[in-house]
Amino acid sequence: MISKIPVGILGATGTVGQRFIQLLHEHPWFEITWLAASDRSAGKLYPEAAKWNLATAIPANIAAMKVSAAAPDGTTPKLVFAALDATAAQQIEPAFAEAGHAVVSNSSAFRMAEDVPLIIPEVNGDHVPLIKTQKWYKKNGGFMVTNPNCSAIGLVLALAPLHRRFGIDKIFVATMQAISGAGYPGVPSMDILGNVIPYIAKEEDKMEAETRKLLGSLVESALNGSRVVDADLTLSAHCNRVAVEDGHTESVSLKLRKPATAQEIIEAWDEFRCLPQKLKLPTAPEQPIIYESAPDRPQPRLDRDRGRGMSAVCGRLRPCNIFDWKFTVLSHNTIRGAAGAALLNGELLKAQGYIS
Amino acid sequence: MISKIPVGILGATGTVGQRFIQLLHEHPWFEITWLAASDRSAGKLYPEAAKWNLATAIPANIAAMKVSAAAPDGTTPKLVFAALDATAAQQIEPAFAEAGHAVVSNSSAFRMAEDVPLIIPEVNGDHVPLIKTQKWYKKNGGFMVTNPNCSAIGLVLALAPLHRRFGIDKIFVATMQAISGAGYPGVPSMDILGNVIPYIAKEEDKMEAETRKLLGSLVESALNGSRVVDADLTLSAHCNRVAVEDGHTESVSLKLRKPATAQEIIEAWDEFRCLPQKLKLPTAPEQPIIYESAPDRPQPRLDRDRGRGMSAVCGRLRPCNIFDWKFTVLSHNTIRGAAGAALLNGELLKAQGYIS
Amino acid sequence: MISKIPVGILGATGTVGQRFIQLLHEHPWFEITWLAASDRSAGKLYPEAAKWNLATAIPANIAAMKVSAAAPDGTTPKLVFAALDATAAQQIEPAFAEAGHAVVSNSSAFRMAEDVPLIIPEVNGDHVPLIKTQKWYKKNGGFMVTNPNCSAIGLVLALAPLHRRFGIDKIFVATMQAISGAGYPGVPSMDILGNVIPYIAKEEDKMEAETRKLLGSLVESALNGSRVVDADLTLSAHCNRVAVEDGHTESVSLKLRKPATAQEIIEAWDEFRCLPQKLKLPTAPEQPIIYESAPDRPQPRLDRDRGRGMSAVCGRLRPCNIFDWKFTVLSHNTIRGAAGAALLNGELLKAQGYIS
Amino acid sequence: MISKIPVGILGATGTVGQRFIQLLHEHPWFEITWLAASDRSAGKLYPEAAKWNLATAIPANIAAMKVSAAAPDGTTPKLVFAALDATAAQQIEPAFAEAGHAVVSNSSAFRMAEDVPLIIPEVNGDHVPLIKTQKWYKKNGGFMVTNPNCSAIGLVLALAPLHRRFGIDKIFVATMQAISGAGYPGVPSMDILGNVIPYIAKEEDKMEAETRKLLGSLVESALNGSRVVDADLTLSAHCNRVAVEDGHTESVSLKLRKPATAQEIIEAWDEFRCLPQKLKLPTAPEQPIIYESAPDRPQPRLDRDRGRGMSAVCGRLRPCNIFDWKFTVLSHNTIRGAAGAALLNGELLKAQGYIS
Repeated sequence: MISKIPVGILGATGTVGQRFIQLLHEHPWFEITWLAASDRSAGKLYPEAAKWNLATAIPANIAAMKVSAAAPDGTTPKLVFAALDATAAQQIEPAFAEAGHAVVSNSSAFRMAEDVPLIIPEVNGDHVPLIKTQKWYKKNGGFMVTNPNCSAIGLVLALAPLHRRFGIDKIFVATMQAISGAGYPGVPSMDILGNVIPYIAKEEDKMEAETRKLLGSLVESALNGSRVVDADLTLSAHCNRVAVEDGHTESVSLKLRKPATAQEIIEAWDEFRCLPQKLKLPTAPEQPIIYESAPDRPQPRLDRDRGRGMSAVCGRLRPCNIFDWKFTVLSHNTIRGAAGAALLNGELLKAQGYIS
Repeated sequence: MISKIPVGILGATGTVGQRFIQLLHEHPWFEITWLAASDRSAGKLYPEAAKWNLATAIPANIAAMKVSAAAPDGTTPKLVFAALDATAAQQIEPAFAEAGHAVVSNSSAFRMAEDVPLIIPEVNGDHVPLIKTQKWYKKNGGFMVTNPNCSAIGLVLALAPLHRRFGIDKIFVATMQAISGAGYPGVPSMDILGNVIPYIAKEEDKMEAETRKLLGSLVESALNGSRVVDADLTLSAHCNRVAVEDGHTESVSLKLRKPATAQEIIEAWDEFRCLPQKLKLPTAPEQPIIYESAPDRPQPRLDRDRGRGMSAVCGRLRPCNIFDWKFTVLSHNTIRGAAGAALLNGELLKAQGYIS
Repeated sequence: MISKIPVGILGATGTVGQRFIQLLHEHPWFEITWLAASDRSAGKLYPEAAKWNLATAIPANIAAMKVSAAAPDGTTPKLVFAALDATAAQQIEPAFAEAGHAVVSNSSAFRMAEDVPLIIPEVNGDHVPLIKTQKWYKKNGGFMVTNPNCSAIGLVLALAPLHRRFGIDKIFVATMQAISGAGYPGVPSMDILGNVIPYIAKEEDKMEAETRKLLGSLVESALNGSRVVDADLTLSAHCNRVAVEDGHTESVSLKLRKPATAQEIIEAWDEFRCLPQKLKLPTAPEQPIIYESAPDRPQPRLDRDRGRGMSAVCGRLRPCNIFDWKFTVLSHNTIRGAAGAALLNGELLKAQGYIS
Repeated sequence: MISKIPVGILGATGTVGQRFIQLLHEHPWFEITWLAASDRSAGKLYPEAAKWNLATAIPANIAAMKVSAAAPDGTTPKLVFAALDATAAQQIEPAFAEAGHAVVSNSSAFRMAEDVPLIIPEVNGDHVPLIKTQKWYKKNGGFMVTNPNCSAIGLVLALAPLHRRFGIDKIFVATMQAISGAGYPGVPSMDILGNVIPYIAKEEDKMEAETRKLLGSLVESALNGSRVVDADLTLSAHCNRVAVEDGHTESVSLKLRKPATAQEIIEAWDEFRCLPQKLKLPTAPEQPIIYESAPDRPQPRLDRDRGRGMSAVCGRLRPCNIFDWKFTVLSHNTIRGAAGAALLNGELLKAQGYIS
């Protein structure tokens, strides 16, 4: 029996932290040995500190663990998955990188930083070497890797194979996002029951900026080292919150640079297999993009768990009478869009030898 | 005391029929004297025939009325409001026009017919004279007038003043539509609770075609009589169903023909007063378009009843980085989007002397 | 034109405070001249301090008012409606009574105090004179009157006429309570969407104790002055939260002291007219208890607004094979169960001459 | 490799039929070889006939199967799981028993028939021999076994160990039942979104009668053969529908025949292990009754999947001031309450040698 790599969870009591714990239960490579949360939780047993909100039970080993303060200590493992809100992350995550840790973060705080890779392993796993430009990495091997916003990740999965084959010029997207994306307590029930909220703070800007970075290219120059050049495309996003527990649904219109038929697009989705699939990363879905041909799919309740919550599900591909094509894409916002995304990043880092 | 104009309701037992009854209760001009529904209901007292689904009680006079069969009989008044589904309307509505009735219909069956006016009184009240080209009108004074689909009506209200001032070139719209739009029993709860259905049959085509007709112009030619020339604009719609009782919310991106500032757009909305307001039609809202400046509005639960359900509420006007502007518009789908729309059409016809 | 009685609202920014403002808009007797809330809100204009959550707009005069701190000042009117949470009320309400104000409170803080009347005007309006035993009243005319918990009020309305005619021995009640009962932000959407929470802190105890006090009798003794003797009945409550915006639905089983037929019970409900109806209090519903004979009623969405939210709606009266009868009762929790309840108490006090 | 026992599904396209297919996927003992549904579906491929409504995909082997008519034919296996509505079952199920099949039915049609066992394997597995009194069994080995209503099954699981140890005298129960209990299309969304329906046709009678039979005793007499003597207890049920997808939550008050402490009751639940656990039936949960000590549990969204949907989850045990104890019980209505119930019955029959 091979011993597992110890990992820590920063922000272990929140919605995404809970998903980390759920997804890492019986993980073949990683084992949680350290949990941290805010000062209010530090020192408590995990079940006392967290209002557990998932339909599976707290794993027994986790239930017996004490929550640490959110600072590196002698017991913090090298690899730390971080599920902090952006304000906390701004302060806390650099302290971990500074102390030599590999911070695999779900927060938005450093996603757009020049030297921080923003990664979807299927899309731009080749951007990972950007970490070598981080000052921490040079100093003591610490570094930081991020995954995109939950609303960007399903969309970019659907765009990536089309961008490779046909080039993408313009994208309209209107989202209908699940409440779990706002964490806990998050959205008050009085705001969302029987209602739509046509606004999520900063979300539209994130979708636009992150999509360009994710579909961009890592370029090397003798002078400046490597950096990411954004993809040359324009995205306009409308972000809405709806009364759905999990799963972000998005209506997309798309202008391509080269013409493509519906069949070619569906083939591009069906055939999309990438680094995580080749490397057989444990959390990688067999099929990253599933096309559903029924006219009324994808739907969050029925399709969010496809590929154990890691597949993006597309449907309703049809001509757009302004751009070229329109379609719907769905992905699970707290699995593929958060904890699962970071976990897959962690697995990629391990497979690429950055963590051992 | 002036005696009221008697009116009939076709399809009186359904969701829209019930709204007709609710809105016509104590109406200053009209009085329901005749109710009709399917053969299954004919002969029953109204409360036995209808599964009443509104939060106000069935008016006492209606509760005592018998439901007639859906065919003109000696007691059918001249003016008939019709709330039939499209298939039934296809057969039944012409029979009433043929018999000399003024059919004010909410159905999609004849909206796009060349000689049938498709009317939002604030937008294109001047299209009404198209009824003079109808064969029934020429024969015996019968005619047919329609109102648009519930998803088109709020959008077109918001577009109309902008189209007049700046010209509209292109529109992207993604809808989040309420369940009441599908009638009763309509959407099964197992399909929509905690879910989104990214599909409403035929809805996208209706939105696209009806918007062009509504914003078009009535032209007269010596040779052919009057006809509507569609507006020269392109619309691409994504229609979704969400778990909301009443109120359609729509995310809109807009390309104008002439540049406009945010202030100019909001002014155009604020100042929009039209025929129904001038004529003081009883069902006309004081302010057809209300702009809400709070960043998270409009919302269906909070804003659908503005102007007694007859105002469209706009919000979130902000630049679009593909087109010019984006915003959210909301309207009540069974009031402004159905029964209230037809009722306002009926009032316009009365004010213009087509009904007396 | 008669000038109106000025009133103040304590806790004006919360869910119940908003209902007070809505219900007092254009009230024939009362006029809001003073609004108070927590220190965080004090000094702000009302629309800046409150996250308004009702479907009607903030009245223009209120929108222009500044929020005061929650302490009596020179401008506080004699009559103050209080919508504070219990902890705040514990401190703040006595300070107002002490300063000579008439505090008409919706809070639970003093409901069970010996010298504080707990009033539903239709049920025990004759308990009001208990205020004369309050030290404040004796000192400077200040006093305090309370209304029951939102889950008790609909139930006790339904019980009162049965208690008078037949005597009530035992009651089982299981509630399905709306989210608005928990205020704002209140219940997180992640806790209640597609879910039931079988627990509301302290609610079951409140229902049991308040019901006995409400159905009790005011007795006078030369020695002790007046006091309330609890009704001799036993109640066992199960309180649940469900995904409903407004309206508490309750399943009730009932053991009477004297036999009654279904017809006698329904008659007792139908004929129930009391002090508020006789005095024609503006907020009093014409019919305090409405019996709906359809087998699937009452329902919160359809029936909560009966009698402008002030009627309790009963249905499904049928034999209980353990006790005598079972039925369902529904009432609007933030109107009849909170702001409307207090307002009716205020009107009763005015009609009885305690306020002028 | 041992070959599996072939089984058929009657009513394979409905909500419960789909659950049968899901639960039988990769079942260690049984293999679906025959699917039947209404005439409308007969002859179609399964995916064309069924509107699949589960979050897992249709298994590939099932997707390739044709749907048969609902009558025994040469290919119908001995063991048939039936998920028909009561009216259809009344006609169709006896035809299968008549033809020598073992009908394991979820329908209410024959549950209360004198010679038909109504079984929860943990509760009254010893009632199975009642099938020997069936005329079909005597003739050709055909027989019929049923499981209780979805609202009775969780309750009776919770009652059974208490009945054994302390005796149960009286039960009050108020249910909050999920929409999936009504099948598909079932409850219209307009009836249940943001609402409660305090009525489910015939449900209360079923709960009362089935509970007595399930907790009754099989007695043998030389004269009449075996029969079930109902338990001597009284139950009064209030059945409500709420906006929950899966999982029935029930508020229960209980009068015991012998006194019991809270600890004794929780022990009785914790220690409850029965026939299915001893026989290691594949679908049997390790722990049939789980007690959750958190004050706000059980909740349908969080607890319905415990024991793969086969455990009843109890919580909130507290004194009742009318009876002895009150508590909340939850169970998954389409797994433990329907398809899983029947499947466990089938497994019990196999383990007992009635099927091979």
